[in-house]
Amino acid sequence: MSGYRFYNARLLTMEGKPEVSWGELWTENDRITYVGPAENAPDKTGHDFTEEIDAKGFLIMPGFKDAHTHSAMVFLRSLADDLPLHEWLNNRVFPCEAKLDPDMIYHLTKLAVLEYLTSGITSVFEMYLTPMSIADAFEETGMRCVQTGSLNNFSQSLELLEEWYQKLNSRSSLMSFVPGFHAEYTCSRELLEGVAALAKKYRTPVWCHNSETESEVEQCRERYGMTPTRLFDELGIYDFGGGGYHCVYFDDEDVEIFAKKGLSIVTNPASNAKLASGIAPLSRYLKAGINIAIGTDGPASNNCLDMFREMFLVAGLAKLKEKDAAAMDAAEVLKMATVGGAKAMGLKECDCLSPGKKADLIMLDMDQPNMRPINNIVKNIVYSGSKQNVSLTMIDGVIRYRKGEFFVGEDAEKIIAKAEEITGSLV
Amino acid sequence: MSGYRFYNARLLTMEGKPEVSWGELWTENDRITYVGPAENAPDKTGHDFTEEIDAKGFLIMPGFKDAHTHSAMVFLRSLADDLPLHEWLNNRVFPCEAKLDPDMIYHLTKLAVLEYLTSGITSVFEMYLTPMSIADAFEETGMRCVQTGSLNNFSQSLELLEEWYQKLNSRSSLMSFVPGFHAEYTCSRELLEGVAALAKKYRTPVWCHNSETESEVEQCRERYGMTPTRLFDELGIYDFGGGGYHCVYFDDEDVEIFAKKGLSIVTNPASNAKLASGIAPLSRYLKAGINIAIGTDGPASNNCLDMFREMFLVAGLAKLKEKDAAAMDAAEVLKMATVGGAKAMGLKECDCLSPGKKADLIMLDMDQPNMRPINNIVKNIVYSGSKQNVSLTMIDGVIRYRKGEFFVGEDAEKIIAKAEEITGSLV
Repeated sequence: MSGYRFYNARLLTMEGKPEVSWGELWTENDRITYVGPAENAPDKTGHDFTEEIDAKGFLIMPGFKDAHTHSAMVFLRSLADDLPLHEWLNNRVFPCEAKLDPDMIYHLTKLAVLEYLTSGITSVFEMYLTPMSIADAFEETGMRCVQTGSLNNFSQSLELLEEWYQKLNSRSSLMSFVPGFHAEYTCSRELLEGVAALAKKYRTPVWCHNSETESEVEQCRERYGMTPTRLFDELGIYDFGGGGYHCVYFDDEDVEIFAKKGLSIVTNPASNAKLASGIAPLSRYLKAGINIAIGTDGPASNNCLDMFREMFLVAGLAKLKEKDAAAMDAAEVLKMATVGGAKAMGLKECDCLSPGKKADLIMLDMDQPNMRPINNIVKNIVYSGSKQNVSLTMIDGVIRYRKGEFFVGEDAEKIIAKAEEITGSLV
Repeated sequence: MSGYRFYNARLLTMEGKPEVSWGELWTENDRITYVGPAENAPDKTGHDFTEEIDAKGFLIMPGFKDAHTHSAMVFLRSLADDLPLHEWLNNRVFPCEAKLDPDMIYHLTKLAVLEYLTSGITSVFEMYLTPMSIADAFEETGMRCVQTGSLNNFSQSLELLEEWYQKLNSRSSLMSFVPGFHAEYTCSRELLEGVAALAKKYRTPVWCHNSETESEVEQCRERYGMTPTRLFDELGIYDFGGGGYHCVYFDDEDVEIFAKKGLSIVTNPASNAKLASGIAPLSRYLKAGINIAIGTDGPASNNCLDMFREMFLVAGLAKLKEKDAAAMDAAEVLKMATVGGAKAMGLKECDCLSPGKKADLIMLDMDQPNMRPINNIVKNIVYSGSKQNVSLTMIDGVIRYRKGEFFVGEDAEKIIAKAEEITGSLV
């Protein structure tokens, strides 16, 4: 048995309205066993903690959920920015990706894991080319992941989606898989119908890029006479839940479908800005009662894997979009980055700090100048928080990052060197 | 004599086109004495360095210039966000500010200095209420600062501006002062004419908030039949240079005036987003050949003092504004954050790394996962860089921040505690 006792801690459990309290948090193996005031904590007698951690000056909160990413695309970081979208994708991204093999993706994914840990990210919603080798990378480094497919006319297949669904959902408590396809514009109608059949067979949520750009929606209207969301709905793809990444261009009917079916939207503000896709109307989605999560998107389009930057962007861009400084409260944004992400990813045990939940948590250093004075901690985290405040990242009860050091089963230097070597062979 | 030798370093001098080279950088007292390849470095014999620093794995570049801030507003951080602009200013900011005294501002400014250092900021363009006590705070902590006035109908005066101009320009090589006023909408015509007379008398640049919001410009048009920029130009305020903070809403004539007179624009993207002011058309300004710098604005409106976030926003928002992923190259943004800022602030000796220039520099950790792989270092800094990468901040040849520790003549803990105490008495 292993377990930790954090004491003298500020606690932000994210259960209900975000509010900070003082107390202790205990873990046992992969679970939280106690969280609350010191005076109500269980008797310590007989408890054999791996370590008792004085959390004075720190805040403990649930880890962030990066609800949309393509981790192994780290190799494309800074390679082809500041280009028109079409040129970026066709002349830079696709030719480089064509050279990738599962082993390369395994190693590149590990580099991304290091970065997630520095930003307090404890689970990721991954969509990339080779789910089995990606699973190895996440499993070995201890990162919790939900994977989805990126099925399209040129790669992956319905059979593979089914195989991954079966294999990855029975492999480890750290991982799961939901069927997914790249996007409407890269899939034939037959493929989309196949996905719907899969959803029905396994009564499973389905995910995809949805309405990321204006032209994507226009082209779908030309092809099918309706939006991607309406098309997916009519085909039965969304009959058992799931949702869309990006969702920048939704019409009223799309919003209604998402609300009625309880689908989730994963917003990717940095990517949408950097690729000039637009600003998602999140205030409208919130008003409709749709669950919203936040994702970094892949490092080729972002380029960093940092939830602090994303949170500021979610708030700032919503205020710009609505021309209203009161639009999008910081507390809403923090919910998206934690409980909203967990809901979208089906991680019911990882949403908040509560006894019995998974010990996926982070310690933020509140004694850094950007966190002071303490007028409102939730706003501090969203508006002035930074990776520099992340002091500890724990996943499934295991400390994976602490004070700049990584504990991922392999030296960080080796992971970085291997990723550099692979990048050199690809670009 | 004191001096440092950095060796095994990646160097990004920001002289000319941003390009990375390998070599050494030497300092002596407040100056850079050598920068270039190791093989061309002077003979070490007889050199008595304070320290020789192995910069393997690090990049040395000029420190960032935060070209618009109100440092002491840290006390308002997270106090009144997510409110309509009018309510924020009139019901929260102004009543709290009315209680401030020079000593409080002195202490609060020191907290901001700590944060600047963590983000690699080596000089700030400060505009706040009590320049003399602010000067004390910057001088004691070793932060380079250019101050300007925030003259308006309710506080400060032309006489005070003149007094500060004389006193602060002859006090220390770390500081200077240029006349400034709050904005057109808070100053009478008489006051503006007085500022113009001061500019003429001392042949000095003048600064102010300019065209931050749409309504500010509209109201000026109603009052004077012209934009703020045209008004200032007609009054002679801009006859000896200077420029404007924010500059979100410029018409063609404004752009022409700024270009013709060689004025600078300081952009504040996070503040403009968070307060829903809008997106400045920076691509247009660049095209017109106007010098652009970047500022965080004060921590009440941003809320953090982080040039990495600002740099990403400058690029991301420009791409959104132009609906073009190719708009605003990362190299342009990095120039704004360094040489553009130095130019706007009149810091001719602090713009780049070159022998004879001031030793205002930073060391960035390139072995963090967000900086890897290294396809393009300039893009890495702008798109995935973070405060977490700042390993050392040197101002005027003195190391003020290193590996998380502050060297500012006083314990960081004491500065933070004092700022908390003052905040408690104000809010």
